[in-house]
Amino acid sequence: MGRWEPDAAGRLRAAAMELYVERGYDQTTVADIAARAGVTARTFFRHFADKREVLFAGSAELQERMLEALATAPPGTAPLEAVAAALAVSARMLGDHREYSRRRQEVIAAHDDLRERELVKLDAIGAALAAGLRDRGVPEPEASLTADTGIVVFRQGFARWAFAAEDRPLLEVMTELFQQLRAITA
Amino acid sequence: MGRWEPDAAGRLRAAAMELYVERGYDQTTVADIAARAGVTARTFFRHFADKREVLFAGSAELQERMLEALATAPPGTAPLEAVAAALAVSARMLGDHREYSRRRQEVIAAHDDLRERELVKLDAIGAALAAGLRDRGVPEPEASLTADTGIVVFRQGFARWAFAAEDRPLLEVMTELFQQLRAITA
Repeated sequence: MGRWEPDAAGRLRAAAMELYVERGYDQTTVADIAARAGVTARTFFRHFADKREVLFAGSAELQERMLEALATAPPGTAPLEAVAAALAVSARMLGDHREYSRRRQEVIAAHDDLRERELVKLDAIGAALAAGLRDRGVPEPEASLTADTGIVVFRQGFARWAFAAEDRPLLEVMTELFQQLRAITA
Repeated sequence: MGRWEPDAAGRLRAAAMELYVERGYDQTTVADIAARAGVTARTFFRHFADKREVLFAGSAELQERMLEALATAPPGTAPLEAVAAALAVSARMLGDHREYSRRRQEVIAAHDDLRERELVKLDAIGAALAAGLRDRGVPEPEASLTADTGIVVFRQGFARWAFAAEDRPLLEVMTELFQQLRAITA
């Protein structure tokens, strides 16, 4: 490999997913992923801590962009609307990657430790959104209740969109879940 | 030890919690716990798989009793009300053990793998409640949305009650959170 590596991280993610689907997650090594992506193992480790993190590397950026959207919602926006704005940003980020998302969810669903990792990441996003709401002046327990309810919508919307036979955009699926949430609690 | 061991499981749980608080979770062994409870290690392993499970052994019974409450709610009960009935049962089961609950939460909060385990258990209860709602004829995504929203209330209510300076009963804390949930989504 030369020093010029356009989007090595992206190639590594695609290669990892191919191998996880072809051979299974347990049977895939970092060396396999690097070889498939056409880079060295050293390049792999410049981007990811291990083969598990390839599946979760996007969550830091996702959380950051969601927090930005929350922070920049106009003053006076209702807390749940501010969380909905954060979810809309997540839908824009993830919405073009449905096939990848579906495969990722299948790999995660098949491994207890990956499912746990996913729950921990979602829990962290919820805690960050709650902190963001408190920064907007929302008191507890309203801040945590609103943030974690948003995570419920995010998680179910994402799973339904990734697996569903239908082809509606992620944002539409999430928006409908928010409406159903209102109906449930009315 | 004779064969007659009144509530050995209860003594083991109390002994484990004492030691986790005194020495720390990492520094406590199964042998320590058994010795403190006045039983053999063999007795310990008749009740718990390992020292981690001592902290989570109650969750199977909790889930079972919550599902019973859900299943026996009168026909026509709104889904969120049926979930609230399940949470009321949890409040009755846990409500007399606030000091134990607070210590348990402190131990869990200090260990990543225990926090992950707690999230997995709560997620499993949510999935079981969703299945219970589907058995009552509630369609998806309403069933999962309602169940997981109930878990948000359960988790936050439990944490607030276990740590709060105030002395309100757990059921009252959860009931107030349900009211706040309605206000948030109104």
